[in-house]
Amino acid sequence: MSGLILSGRELAAALRADTARQAAALTDAGTPPRLAVVVATDDEASAGYVRSISTAAVKLGIVCKVLDLGADAELATIRATLAALSADDLVHGIILQTPLPGGVRLEELTGAIAVEKDVDGANPLSLGRLAAGLSAYPPATAAAVLAVLDHHGVELAGRRAVVIGRSTVVGKPVAHLLLERHATVTVCHSRTPDLAAVTCTADVLVAAVGRPGLVTAGHVKRGAVVVDVGTNPTPDGGLVGDVDAGPVAEQAAGLTPVPGGVGPVTTALLLNHTVRAATALTRPASTG
Amino acid sequence: MSGLILSGRELAAALRADTARQAAALTDAGTPPRLAVVVATDDEASAGYVRSISTAAVKLGIVCKVLDLGADAELATIRATLAALSADDLVHGIILQTPLPGGVRLEELTGAIAVEKDVDGANPLSLGRLAAGLSAYPPATAAAVLAVLDHHGVELAGRRAVVIGRSTVVGKPVAHLLLERHATVTVCHSRTPDLAAVTCTADVLVAAVGRPGLVTAGHVKRGAVVVDVGTNPTPDGGLVGDVDAGPVAEQAAGLTPVPGGVGPVTTALLLNHTVRAATALTRPASTG
Repeated sequence: MSGLILSGRELAAALRADTARQAAALTDAGTPPRLAVVVATDDEASAGYVRSISTAAVKLGIVCKVLDLGADAELATIRATLAALSADDLVHGIILQTPLPGGVRLEELTGAIAVEKDVDGANPLSLGRLAAGLSAYPPATAAAVLAVLDHHGVELAGRRAVVIGRSTVVGKPVAHLLLERHATVTVCHSRTPDLAAVTCTADVLVAAVGRPGLVTAGHVKRGAVVVDVGTNPTPDGGLVGDVDAGPVAEQAAGLTPVPGGVGPVTTALLLNHTVRAATALTRPASTG
Repeated sequence: MSGLILSGRELAAALRADTARQAAALTDAGTPPRLAVVVATDDEASAGYVRSISTAAVKLGIVCKVLDLGADAELATIRATLAALSADDLVHGIILQTPLPGGVRLEELTGAIAVEKDVDGANPLSLGRLAAGLSAYPPATAAAVLAVLDHHGVELAGRRAVVIGRSTVVGKPVAHLLLERHATVTVCHSRTPDLAAVTCTADVLVAAVGRPGLVTAGHVKRGAVVVDVGTNPTPDGGLVGDVDAGPVAEQAAGLTPVPGGVGPVTTALLLNHTVRAATALTRPASTG
């Protein structure tokens, strides 16, 4: 008897349809939604990702402008570009692509992205507002984890959630989102001595490390729900997650597949955040 | 056989001595450190707290300016006051006292406190920067929890820490600080069904709820270290923590007392943050 495969494809399609509807309404009203992607790398994988975002955006009626500053761009240039886009009324969403040149910390630069255009939740202020229960866009990947769980009706309030990984992009924001939904939340990482002992307490287990096969059946309580955020390239050009899918699916009540789980929902949410930002930014100012 | 009482008094005294030294150096250099406390309440407990901060500041050579805007102050006034203090070169630390008038959310106003003067870590950007591993002042209470643990040589890396309470002021920032120190961190709260089952997994247990007697011996693993952040007033004018101190001290390897544990370190750190802020703000700008 094996657990359910918690696909993200249906949810991603629904999100895309909603996004396209909002984009059309914005365009009809004279303000086509516009996403700016700032690139400062010649990394191949990054270029592929940017192409896929760009194609997906255009399909939904979002104008996508890629600003390639080159792999030797200076910090001041990247920061000034982000600041100019933040001030530009025609731009509604801003993404800073990684990797960045020469050991620059993403979080230092992303402070220059206006929070109301920070559709991938990269500015530390977005994370702080999220943690403080204020409005902000979470990183799309973190939001996708919650969206997939909700789509499949997974209960969170009062349940034990364990997140493996403490990155600013996934682990920490996912922990905050789960906490806000009244789960009891544990964050594990590379320095956790007996990982399986901790992960086996989870009703909901989120793996966000980037190591294929990290989560085995021995890490999962029978009947748990497992969300696999890993997207690790395989030699044959495919993708695998952080979870040893076959054996874990036998043990779990549900498992998100890779590909086809969190991934498509992440892209769909990024573009959904962009039309939401455009709608909020073009709404007539309230008098309050 | 009972556990150690992990006093905060000695550490607080050392922090005060260091703060006084830094304050004297700043004053000698022509810039006495200055703390501004913004008050918009006629709450008695708050007035007592402000008096005690003010007295402690003056003793250490910090100028403390209390701006009482009155319990019916308008939001715009409070926000404008915080913005003016943020822009004032003679002010180095800013605290916004609670409670606030009429259901205002603290975190919405504290966005107006410049991060480099946010000595009690109240601006959501400070929390976000902390979570992203960037420099920021943590809330003094959260910083005090870590300082007491360090002072008493409590190992954190690779150990299991459980925080009871998910407030923006204590629970969440403490969780981030423990995570940064490589503990495996769990956050529990009012919606955690079997609290004792979770807290009994803790090597280090932090209680930050504000409910006397919440943590009993049955919540504590033998040999754990327990930090009591609660400061609950008693009818006779005293203070008790969240921990049932007698029985828990028997069970634990160490317990912070109330009063005399986290409390005095919190006040000392708030003032220490203020002289650190003054030192950073008055340092000649680097050329980098």
